[in-house]
Amino acid sequence: MLNRAGITKVRFFLLNKQMPAILTPLFGVIGLALAAAIFLSIKKQSAGGGKAEKISVQIQKGAMVFMTREFKLIALFAIALGAALFLFQKPEYRGPQSVAFFMGCLASSAAGYIGMKTATLANVRTCIAANETGAARALKIAFSGGAVMGLTVAAMGLLGLGTLFAIYAENKYLPEILEGFAMGASLVALFYRVGGGIFTKAADVGTDLVGKVEAGIPEDDPRNPGVIADNVGDNVGDVAGMGSDIFESYCGAQIATIAIASASAAAGVGYAATVGASETLLLQLPLILTTVGIVCSVLGILMVNLFANKDPAKSLRIGTIGAAALFIIASYGITSFFNLSSNLATAVLCGAVGGVLIGLITEHYTGGKPVRTIATQGETGVATLVICGLSVGLQSVVLPILTIAATLYGAYECAELYGVGLAAIGMLGTVGITMAIDAYGPIADNAGGIAEMAEMGDETREITDSLDVVGNTTAAIGKGFAIGAAGLAALALITAFIQKTGISLDLASPDSLRYFFVGLLIGGAVPFFNGSLTMDAVGKAAGSMIEEIRRQFREEPGILEGTVEPDSDRCIDIATKAATRSMVGPALLAVGTPIVVGFGFNFIGAEGAQAGAKTLAGCLIGALLGCVLLALFMSNAGGAWDNAKKHVEDGHNGGKGSETHAASVVGDTVGDPLKDTSGPSMNILINVMAIVSLVIAGLL
Amino acid sequence: MLNRAGITKVRFFLLNKQMPAILTPLFGVIGLALAAAIFLSIKKQSAGGGKAEKISVQIQKGAMVFMTREFKLIALFAIALGAALFLFQKPEYRGPQSVAFFMGCLASSAAGYIGMKTATLANVRTCIAANETGAARALKIAFSGGAVMGLTVAAMGLLGLGTLFAIYAENKYLPEILEGFAMGASLVALFYRVGGGIFTKAADVGTDLVGKVEAGIPEDDPRNPGVIADNVGDNVGDVAGMGSDIFESYCGAQIATIAIASASAAAGVGYAATVGASETLLLQLPLILTTVGIVCSVLGILMVNLFANKDPAKSLRIGTIGAAALFIIASYGITSFFNLSSNLATAVLCGAVGGVLIGLITEHYTGGKPVRTIATQGETGVATLVICGLSVGLQSVVLPILTIAATLYGAYECAELYGVGLAAIGMLGTVGITMAIDAYGPIADNAGGIAEMAEMGDETREITDSLDVVGNTTAAIGKGFAIGAAGLAALALITAFIQKTGISLDLASPDSLRYFFVGLLIGGAVPFFNGSLTMDAVGKAAGSMIEEIRRQFREEPGILEGTVEPDSDRCIDIATKAATRSMVGPALLAVGTPIVVGFGFNFIGAEGAQAGAKTLAGCLIGALLGCVLLALFMSNAGGAWDNAKKHVEDGHNGGKGSETHAASVVGDTVGDPLKDTSGPSMNILINVMAIVSLVIAGLL
Repeated sequence: MLNRAGITKVRFFLLNKQMPAILTPLFGVIGLALAAAIFLSIKKQSAGGGKAEKISVQIQKGAMVFMTREFKLIALFAIALGAALFLFQKPEYRGPQSVAFFMGCLASSAAGYIGMKTATLANVRTCIAANETGAARALKIAFSGGAVMGLTVAAMGLLGLGTLFAIYAENKYLPEILEGFAMGASLVALFYRVGGGIFTKAADVGTDLVGKVEAGIPEDDPRNPGVIADNVGDNVGDVAGMGSDIFESYCGAQIATIAIASASAAAGVGYAATVGASETLLLQLPLILTTVGIVCSVLGILMVNLFANKDPAKSLRIGTIGAAALFIIASYGITSFFNLSSNLATAVLCGAVGGVLIGLITEHYTGGKPVRTIATQGETGVATLVICGLSVGLQSVVLPILTIAATLYGAYECAELYGVGLAAIGMLGTVGITMAIDAYGPIADNAGGIAEMAEMGDETREITDSLDVVGNTTAAIGKGFAIGAAGLAALALITAFIQKTGISLDLASPDSLRYFFVGLLIGGAVPFFNGSLTMDAVGKAAGSMIEEIRRQFREEPGILEGTVEPDSDRCIDIATKAATRSMVGPALLAVGTPIVVGFGFNFIGAEGAQAGAKTLAGCLIGALLGCVLLALFMSNAGGAWDNAKKHVEDGHNGGKGSETHAASVVGDTVGDPLKDTSGPSMNILINVMAIVSLVIAGLL
Repeated sequence: MLNRAGITKVRFFLLNKQMPAILTPLFGVIGLALAAAIFLSIKKQSAGGGKAEKISVQIQKGAMVFMTREFKLIALFAIALGAALFLFQKPEYRGPQSVAFFMGCLASSAAGYIGMKTATLANVRTCIAANETGAARALKIAFSGGAVMGLTVAAMGLLGLGTLFAIYAENKYLPEILEGFAMGASLVALFYRVGGGIFTKAADVGTDLVGKVEAGIPEDDPRNPGVIADNVGDNVGDVAGMGSDIFESYCGAQIATIAIASASAAAGVGYAATVGASETLLLQLPLILTTVGIVCSVLGILMVNLFANKDPAKSLRIGTIGAAALFIIASYGITSFFNLSSNLATAVLCGAVGGVLIGLITEHYTGGKPVRTIATQGETGVATLVICGLSVGLQSVVLPILTIAATLYGAYECAELYGVGLAAIGMLGTVGITMAIDAYGPIADNAGGIAEMAEMGDETREITDSLDVVGNTTAAIGKGFAIGAAGLAALALITAFIQKTGISLDLASPDSLRYFFVGLLIGGAVPFFNGSLTMDAVGKAAGSMIEEIRRQFREEPGILEGTVEPDSDRCIDIATKAATRSMVGPALLAVGTPIVVGFGFNFIGAEGAQAGAKTLAGCLIGALLGCVLLALFMSNAGGAWDNAKKHVEDGHNGGKGSETHAASVVGDTVGDPLKDTSGPSMNILINVMAIVSLVIAGLL
């Protein structure tokens, strides 16, 4: 054990040597190494060698087609934006900021790619294990696949941010450089999340409509040319898309906290002294916390594996909650070790508690009594079921929003705005395990799809279905973290934006109020426009899919007879094209709005009034509110309809084949683009808008 | 003609004698007299004496049942709130403010009551005229019914506000007293609008589901015990509800403008001088404008009657646009007459132009290409039709919001915040005619229902249907005015609130930002909660209706055979009870939120931080944004589905009886509570919240 003098020595050493510059990237590398080890251990498992493996290879290839095409489009955008940064940004930091921007793009792409690659390996192996060994082994493989994704996201973040810290620790524009990284990560997340969301739902809706409704063949039937695309969608939307989304929030939360620390210092708020910290330490603390966070995540993953044999559902919960508890304890340890006010750790605690609460509330609305009410309303028809789902969605917004408000209030009481950033870190610090469980779901789901296509029998299918259910509750908690953290991180970024522009935005002054309000209205409209764009995109892409599947059935009757193989690649190609084409609108909206509003109102407004910055601040606040509200409404309404359908299929309210079931299928389809495309795109939309604004703040 | 000296003399006389204190109530009385004259002329028309008249008497009685029951509940709330005002309000003005509050309650109730009474007389007479004389005569009667409502709303406003001006012109708390009036009007509007909305949709959905779907009898079939309730709903929801809603916005816009003038004067903004006005004149100008506005409305109504024989559709448009044009010209005349800057009139112009634009955009989304797209999407099923409608609704928010933002910006450029108030008056100044056309719609609709129930044949039904269509475009413009004005009036009220509390709300200060943001989140959740409450209320009330209608069909087989009369009164009773019971939640939410937030955060927050006022300001801004966004989304999505159904019924996409038609009927039913209950409740929700906040501002 260290004695007092020893502690002081270690403390001095760490602070002096810019601890995050050494330990953070080191832990990032260790995390990646661990992920690689788990990846290899998954790869060693049997893929069966038969039909299942063949299908999984098709899925893998399809996912690669999408990722590659998407990546080309991202590259175009990234080069344009990176060039713009390099040309127009302030000369003091434009070089390193654009380098960091490209690093952010690459890190996020890599995280998404690795996650997708692992998922497409793990799905077939989970399926084979379910078929040959049993549930416990299958769960372990699926969860290991998720763990690779989780660790990669966390480790990539540490490696990227840590490296930038190591290189630019002495650069006084360190926050601006890190913002470049965050912007890169956000841009890529936007494409993978929204593009993936459009792909997956277009494939899902299109395949189901022609297959189940018109041709009368079951879901996941290998004769349907769209089923491979449907399974590809799970990997590119739910794994790669979600991974890059969470990666973006994770980095965003840390960078926002750093930006607040730096802006407060620049504004002479002198906050550091009140918590007993040096300003440098406040800049470092976010990375110190997340570095410890990855250790907690690894311990959580170990716990899951330790208990998986006894009670799979419980093991996931123990892992998640155990890791979060460890992280909170560690936070108190860290503040004590560095002689900081324990209020800082309490802010982390506020975030973690808020995240768990949002998760539990979300679970109630998408799995509890409201779901049964929706199913019951289905007895009087589709209309009442849809109305009820909309109402549940609207109501489900209230408590999570109040929880975010309470978290914000509590965290602020602990450590002012810096505390708000810490609360976001509190929600995302153990991203290694929460992301693992998030990614576990689609892997299990995909394993089920492969089992069906490879005709492995009901027993295997039952195991994969049960695996899917196991992760749902725990995943809800993870989603709670993600929603809360995205909101708080965006708020922190917006605050940093306001501080950095140096505007006075007193709403009691009519002049400020005017700019603010005009911006607020514009910002409020943005998520609605984005929602419409993404839903339309799904509709149109699904339409193209439908036409293609119909064409194949018509021109080659052998497909439905099972004698000719359908042309899956064309379906993947069509969905990919549609998704990439439809991405341009949302991408321009997210990146363009801050630029147009910021520079536009500087041009329109009175000279020296900083009209652009004021209007943009209002715009960001309006967009934040609109995005959080719509994200919750859409995701929860969609989730509730989905589970209402499952509830009916479990034999309630008439069960499968009843009128109520038909109504619940419609509800589920309506909810599909809401919960998997438009809803999730909102978090990333506001984060892109906020980070772009922060990056251009110096120019306004 | 007056010479220069004469003008000066008149001007001096008017200003010295507090013109609004004399002329405004006088014009109010004249307006009411005109309305009474038109009412009597309608009453003189033949009601047929037969089955139709009997049905209309049933409708009238049913409407009375609802209005009376609702009024009792309002009385309870009003007495409680009035007593609270009298007990806890600042002693300087609590007496007159609570008197004004009760006056506002009475004026709004009276406007709603007169409108309902007229509509239930005019509907049967329109029906008889359509049957016996023809379309032109029927249009005139229906429009006259609307005109009574329109003139009553405008005249009641002038009489109420003018009388208060006459009594309290010298009282320095005049704005506070007027705010009491606005609060009374808002409270009543909330009950009639939301309660009426719940009643009408519960009756509509319940009656249709059992009648059309289960019993297989056509719409408006007299054997259905719910049809009378359905027709009652049109009168209490669309006429009385809308009338008190518009009345509230109309008074709110004027009072907000007065409050801004007064608050600016108190804050020493000294704005008056820059537009060449005395501060007193700025207080009077809103009433001077609306007094002239009622004259323009009367001229518009005359124009409609003049051209009605030639081209009915055109005559309505000529009347609306003619009155608005006259009003704008008159505004420039007034500013010139009083030697004021013409910028003030330009602010009025901004409002009028903004209102027309919002109306045209709304018309596009609820009647143009998007509607045909929805219908086409119905070909692939209910799910795609519903998704498309949601997407159209989301998109339809964007341009109106940007128009409101532009109007706000333009009006502010003309005359700062005072200009924003004037813009709202620009939208509502000719309420006499826009409200007339709004109320004309449900009268024509009801006439059609009566024709059906009285079995008057297809020809009569065709005429009434055509009357219904005629008003739609013009009504859309009126609705544009209403939405824009409600938003601007609420904004003006919120501004007045911020000024009155004297808070500094600098978002660049983290402390203010924290309170503001917590409030913003709470406020943003309120409209979602309200949406859920009102939709649930419709669902539950419709459920009770369904049970009752089923019971009657089951227990008395003679009803369906046509030998026994159904018990309509019980259905009315059930819908009334359900509507009044469900009103308590939304009413408490609207009135309670500002009180709880304002006083609650004063209690929680730091001493002297004015935490309550700051949080409440954020809350109002969040609620305003949420309400405007949701109101547009819900109303337009519902309107688009409604017209998509009509489009299919006109023979497109397979026409009546096709699968597409069935899908479009579901879409229409889903949209019903959105467009007629939840959507319209949003405008009034934010206005109640804003006015309650303004009234308690002195105590925070």
